[in-house]
Amino acid sequence: MTELYHWFDLIGIAVFAITGTLVAHEKKMDGFGVVVLATVTAIGGGTVRDVILDVPVFWLHDQSYFYAILAAVLITTRLINKQKSIPHYTLQIADAFGLAFFAVMGTQKALLAGMPHMTAIIMGVITGCFGGMIRDVLAREIPMLLKGELYAITCIAGGIVYTLGIYFGLATELAMVLAMLTTLSLRIAAIKWQITVHVFNYPD
Amino acid sequence: MTELYHWFDLIGIAVFAITGTLVAHEKKMDGFGVVVLATVTAIGGGTVRDVILDVPVFWLHDQSYFYAILAAVLITTRLINKQKSIPHYTLQIADAFGLAFFAVMGTQKALLAGMPHMTAIIMGVITGCFGGMIRDVLAREIPMLLKGELYAITCIAGGIVYTLGIYFGLATELAMVLAMLTTLSLRIAAIKWQITVHVFNYPD
Amino acid sequence: MTELYHWFDLIGIAVFAITGTLVAHEKKMDGFGVVVLATVTAIGGGTVRDVILDVPVFWLHDQSYFYAILAAVLITTRLINKQKSIPHYTLQIADAFGLAFFAVMGTQKALLAGMPHMTAIIMGVITGCFGGMIRDVLAREIPMLLKGELYAITCIAGGIVYTLGIYFGLATELAMVLAMLTTLSLRIAAIKWQITVHVFNYPD
Repeated sequence: MTELYHWFDLIGIAVFAITGTLVAHEKKMDGFGVVVLATVTAIGGGTVRDVILDVPVFWLHDQSYFYAILAAVLITTRLINKQKSIPHYTLQIADAFGLAFFAVMGTQKALLAGMPHMTAIIMGVITGCFGGMIRDVLAREIPMLLKGELYAITCIAGGIVYTLGIYFGLATELAMVLAMLTTLSLRIAAIKWQITVHVFNYPD
Repeated sequence: MTELYHWFDLIGIAVFAITGTLVAHEKKMDGFGVVVLATVTAIGGGTVRDVILDVPVFWLHDQSYFYAILAAVLITTRLINKQKSIPHYTLQIADAFGLAFFAVMGTQKALLAGMPHMTAIIMGVITGCFGGMIRDVLAREIPMLLKGELYAITCIAGGIVYTLGIYFGLATELAMVLAMLTTLSLRIAAIKWQITVHVFNYPD
Repeated sequence: MTELYHWFDLIGIAVFAITGTLVAHEKKMDGFGVVVLATVTAIGGGTVRDVILDVPVFWLHDQSYFYAILAAVLITTRLINKQKSIPHYTLQIADAFGLAFFAVMGTQKALLAGMPHMTAIIMGVITGCFGGMIRDVLAREIPMLLKGELYAITCIAGGIVYTLGIYFGLATELAMVLAMLTTLSLRIAAIKWQITVHVFNYPD
């Protein structure tokens, strides 16, 4: 189980590192700063979560995360340099996968730390969304999160599915997979059909 | 007393959530991201304060803050949608109220945690100013804080008044109200008459 | 030794406060916000480091840092106001000095806290780079860190030199000075000859 948890974490980390590299390329960045951007994107959300929960930050004693990030950056830059242009779509899909992994891992970690349900779900949002938010701020983009398309709410949905799953006695692995699929499918649907929730009535 | 503290906190939270919603509207944002922006604005300063003080983050075990934020966002969006255009002035005044509440609550919390006076006053600045600073960064605005008009210094003034009040044996409630009025009146005066402190001699 | 550590820390703090003031001037900021920007730049990296390491934040019980910041801001604004225009070069060189001091101090603090070597070196990067990164984000600049010129990697080099020095039994003071010179000379060389590492093959 802990093994599985760790692998899921590594996949989420690698996927977000890929999105950081893609944004760096879109923004014409270069140099070792690309690795920094990928790293901040990959570990940003989980770091903020752990600091707020006041538990040991997950990467302090585990260097595998950095190897995953380095590998992800290396492979992504190779692919980009071969293929020249990468559709923006790729970035959004990779981001959706990262979101799905991290929203659930964040909710889970907060529940294990004894947090109430609502706080656990918010921790899922922080873990899932904050790395990408920091990435977009550093790249001087308006964070995807704030653009109107279903985004944070897909993390909340995943968090609720996981919390309910555990509450009703589902196996942890099953609850995790169901919750990840919830976030992932909602987010991909939102990208594909540009589903937005309207809060304001802007004149067209 | 603890009751009063909590109510003051909730008011500050709600007021900052309103400013987040107003900025989201000005910036043509939409969707659930508006709630995220309002939330980050409302709890950002206090979260940074608690993390730096290494005390439990105030909202981890208290969900009332999120209900206050949701209510504030709901009412504000309703009003905006009815009235269509909201003067920028409204945002600044709401921000001033949030500043006044949070500067004092932040100073108080740091003093209760046994911090020296200067640190407590800086914690007031962090609590008061950082939520709005994060809000402005996410909305890609230059933070109000950095625009030259009296801003952070009104938090410092409130923090000093509170610290002196406690030092000279004033009742906590009285010191709080006096300090809040100090920050609020200074900030509103600065908005009204555009009072700035000049640090640089820019050529006109 | 602790004395020396503290003095090195104060110099790093003052130097970063100077860069904050220079950026504020370049960006036509004014008012007390300049002091806030200088402060955030100066203590930002170390604060993030201490929060992630979960050790007491270095400035909570030591007010000398704020006096150093105030002195640096005062002197820098004086000089700017006398001389009117300051070449951008000055900012980069001051930033390089801050980087050199903080990369080493950050690595050292993490090693003393019992962190593994890789984590300690990353803490050096965080301490050295994050204050300037926050400064640039607040000023709506693309962080120097992400511009392709050798930057974060000079902190890594300094951190490695320090870690190796300690590992091979060098006196702490000697390891510190060697490591600082490594970061400083690499960074200044990068500024002077615009040395960049290429990660992407952008068409010219």
